[in-house]
Amino acid sequence: MEITTKNFIEQLPTIRQTIREASFFAIDGEFTGLTSDRNVLPFDTPEEVYLKTIDNSADFVIIQLGLCAFRVDPESGQVSYKCFNFYCYPKGRMHIFSCQGESMRFLAENGFDFNKLFREGLSYCGEADEDRLRTELKERQDQRAAALEAKEEENGNNDSLNMVPVPPEEEKLMKEISERIEEFLKSEDKDYTITNCNGFQRKLVYQMIDSQFRKTVSTSSVTLENNHKAILVERKRTKEQELKLEEERVAQENEDLERMVGLSLVLQELSRARKLIIGHNMLLDLLFIIRQFFRPLPHCYQEFKKIVRELFPLILDTKYLCTNGELKVHVYSSVLGHVFEAVNKAPFNIPEVTCGFEEHKYSPDDMKQHDAGYDAYLTGLCFLGLASFFKVDLKDLTRDPILKAYINRIFLLRVSEINYIYTHGKEPSFSREHVFFVSFPETWRQSDIVNRFRNYGQVYVNWVNSNSAFVTLHNRDYASHVIKTIDKASITICTLTQFKAKHWLGLKGDTIVIVPIEDISITTTTIITSTAPTTKGKQKKKKNRHR
Amino acid sequence: MEITTKNFIEQLPTIRQTIREASFFAIDGEFTGLTSDRNVLPFDTPEEVYLKTIDNSADFVIIQLGLCAFRVDPESGQVSYKCFNFYCYPKGRMHIFSCQGESMRFLAENGFDFNKLFREGLSYCGEADEDRLRTELKERQDQRAAALEAKEEENGNNDSLNMVPVPPEEEKLMKEISERIEEFLKSEDKDYTITNCNGFQRKLVYQMIDSQFRKTVSTSSVTLENNHKAILVERKRTKEQELKLEEERVAQENEDLERMVGLSLVLQELSRARKLIIGHNMLLDLLFIIRQFFRPLPHCYQEFKKIVRELFPLILDTKYLCTNGELKVHVYSSVLGHVFEAVNKAPFNIPEVTCGFEEHKYSPDDMKQHDAGYDAYLTGLCFLGLASFFKVDLKDLTRDPILKAYINRIFLLRVSEINYIYTHGKEPSFSREHVFFVSFPETWRQSDIVNRFRNYGQVYVNWVNSNSAFVTLHNRDYASHVIKTIDKASITICTLTQFKAKHWLGLKGDTIVIVPIEDISITTTTIITSTAPTTKGKQKKKKNRHR
Repeated sequence: MEITTKNFIEQLPTIRQTIREASFFAIDGEFTGLTSDRNVLPFDTPEEVYLKTIDNSADFVIIQLGLCAFRVDPESGQVSYKCFNFYCYPKGRMHIFSCQGESMRFLAENGFDFNKLFREGLSYCGEADEDRLRTELKERQDQRAAALEAKEEENGNNDSLNMVPVPPEEEKLMKEISERIEEFLKSEDKDYTITNCNGFQRKLVYQMIDSQFRKTVSTSSVTLENNHKAILVERKRTKEQELKLEEERVAQENEDLERMVGLSLVLQELSRARKLIIGHNMLLDLLFIIRQFFRPLPHCYQEFKKIVRELFPLILDTKYLCTNGELKVHVYSSVLGHVFEAVNKAPFNIPEVTCGFEEHKYSPDDMKQHDAGYDAYLTGLCFLGLASFFKVDLKDLTRDPILKAYINRIFLLRVSEINYIYTHGKEPSFSREHVFFVSFPETWRQSDIVNRFRNYGQVYVNWVNSNSAFVTLHNRDYASHVIKTIDKASITICTLTQFKAKHWLGLKGDTIVIVPIEDISITTTTIITSTAPTTKGKQKKKKNRHR
Repeated sequence: MEITTKNFIEQLPTIRQTIREASFFAIDGEFTGLTSDRNVLPFDTPEEVYLKTIDNSADFVIIQLGLCAFRVDPESGQVSYKCFNFYCYPKGRMHIFSCQGESMRFLAENGFDFNKLFREGLSYCGEADEDRLRTELKERQDQRAAALEAKEEENGNNDSLNMVPVPPEEEKLMKEISERIEEFLKSEDKDYTITNCNGFQRKLVYQMIDSQFRKTVSTSSVTLENNHKAILVERKRTKEQELKLEEERVAQENEDLERMVGLSLVLQELSRARKLIIGHNMLLDLLFIIRQFFRPLPHCYQEFKKIVRELFPLILDTKYLCTNGELKVHVYSSVLGHVFEAVNKAPFNIPEVTCGFEEHKYSPDDMKQHDAGYDAYLTGLCFLGLASFFKVDLKDLTRDPILKAYINRIFLLRVSEINYIYTHGKEPSFSREHVFFVSFPETWRQSDIVNRFRNYGQVYVNWVNSNSAFVTLHNRDYASHVIKTIDKASITICTLTQFKAKHWLGLKGDTIVIVPIEDISITTTTIITSTAPTTKGKQKKKKNRHR
């Protein structure tokens, strides 16, 4: 079911109820752009990957969030689901977000409805903003209540010092309007609209009304159909009228606040549920959800894990599940659609899932890839398929001994040693003594580097720019010999550890840049570098330029 | 007529022809966000406004450009027009642009079709990128031509050092595929597709083919319908086949390049025309057009004027035209729609305009406000209406003596002294000796400031933050007395000139910040400040927070 501003307030209780009754969830987000991971290297630690990911992350946002709630009947074990597809974007004048042209094109070509997004997308806000909004609204409402209680008309403000003097050419107009208000007060008319004044004249009118009619009329600013501004003049309201009006106003303000916190209310409910949440390649989904609906992403890795544990204590990444351990050989490609193809055949067996509500239903044949709701649904089915291999008891999912080894591990792309973040503890450490940072002449090609390392067996080269690269030995036994014995003519070489002590590998556009650590200034989420861009790898130069 | 990727290449010759034949143009752009001008003060100079505008400008882009070409028949004086409405956005993976939530909502609510934008929007690029693209394409094509000419088969590259060793578990697969290629070469089949390999296996296959079949088969990477990657194997092509294929490829590449430069080709034609270009409140349109289709905006004001003169030597801003001089009294509000209402009545008289092409036509009754094409058309009509007041000879527009006083002056909002940028010379200078920068206790309100200045007559207060403001005297005669005679208890005061010598007034979000000049580091387009945000004006605090 699509959730937009058209049905959010009406559906919110059902959504909350569904979350409370669910056994586990599958989620998926569509973003306005993807965080680059070009500076992530195969031998990076999970901590380094996390830090690089948040540093590379521009102000992209989730614009569609799919939430598929699965329920396992405690008696029959029968699985049912309800799927929600939320549209959202930050709507205010001060809300500026980034888009990657390529991502927008990709989503549009896959049928994403941007018109619905920008016409009917939900608002959302982080915890700090929500607190502020609630406090301030409360204050305003309390102040108004107190003012109404006090009942007394204010005495004229002594702000004649702020009064704008009426220029001679406007005196006639002011006099006319003043007479027209007197007439209105004597008439039976419900209200009187002052039109055809420019901004300055309206200021003078308000000033005149405030000094002459404070006790007899109430004013409000209105916009006419032709978009001209006007002043609506009504008779001063009675105490009862004021109280009734105030009551309506408070109710409206409270509902407006719910709309403004919007999708965050759903994510808060999801967090409170403390149930298993499944995603496929979920690192970015998780980072964006935390940043968008809860709080900023910290530059401290341990602090990040603490936040995840606090907000989402049980997560499972199907990409990690199907690319590690026993399942790997049965799953040919870990792209979501391909995993679904794989789990539809032996040795897997997706249990039957039902959905009692037409509006919450998907079918695998819908082929709505990149619709967040559909992808969440598909992720859920993939999980059920993969879990069938282990004969997992769906009624007691999170206690399954085999599944336990996969829970709270977020899959990391591009790395070869430890390819996950473990949110509930430390990841295993591994030696990187066989990785070296080498600088060489601009004219060198891959073969020159490989040739220089020929005595140490097969090597992998990761280019940084046109005159430096990381070189990793296939055979770690040679690691301790390299620095001592390599021919150092026209190259400089140091270990990865020595390099990291003094440098950070940042991104500038799509180009990797080496930044001396003392030049780094950390702002909220970005590492700002002043280093000039350098192109990656001689032989790759051409290719890069054409992207 | 809407121009998108669906009809761009086909319509480009007509568009160019229309531009060449036109007498003058009206333009309008729709943006993904508006540059804030909150730190622009009424007494700022045009140069200060320009610098603040480009410093405040985030990476917003034009996503719709309206171009209405008007033609005045040299014989009859009859006016006809053709209107084009271009959709565009930067489409690449490295193209990141910003959006303001509020602007996106506003455009969507006014019927802007974001789906069309992201599915069919045109590409564009700046001059430097275009040069690079053209040079690189030429180089690639020349290299390929030379290689074809050389005809000779390359000898096997001596890159065995780069060869990935085939792991034992993959040896069987490689042998099978090698045999299958032998079979294919003996068969009548046109090609053979190698499927069901993962990325690593495909790498091994390419390597095997390169060493065993270099002279007999050609390969290409293809993506199957199910999105799996595969390798297409074909028989090695003959020289004639290669040449024909190359010819087709060059033609396709050249057309692709035109598509990539896209909308910039139209703007280049417009610039080459060197004819009058009319906009309504056109500062941002002009800045965005220069930055998006030509080159970065310089931090030097004189350099900016030079660029405008070079690219668009004749411009006219109808907002400046109707808010200055004789026309001001007849035009009640300078909002585009209101100006159009005004020029439909005496003393104005819009000449009849015709459009021979249904697909290029608008009617004022269309009410398509905020459709760039419609707004450009309406701007053109407003200009014709306003010009009718001066009995301008449309056949010789730019030589009209009265109009001349308005040409090349770009309207500036929010300023009260010189409210335009004059691109062909210096604007008049004016004294600001009657403006003071004052700091005072946090508890002060407007009335405290006004009271302190009571001996110098009426003043205007522009708050900077909760404890400082600019105070402008209404009566300039008192200017020289203030510093000498004002009561300095609990305040500090200096002249605007003294203040400017040491400080820059920046923006942080929506908040004005005072930045000591020595703390400023200028990056490409932004002034980065490290100053903490401060709220503007005590009494405005609440209001700001709720935006």
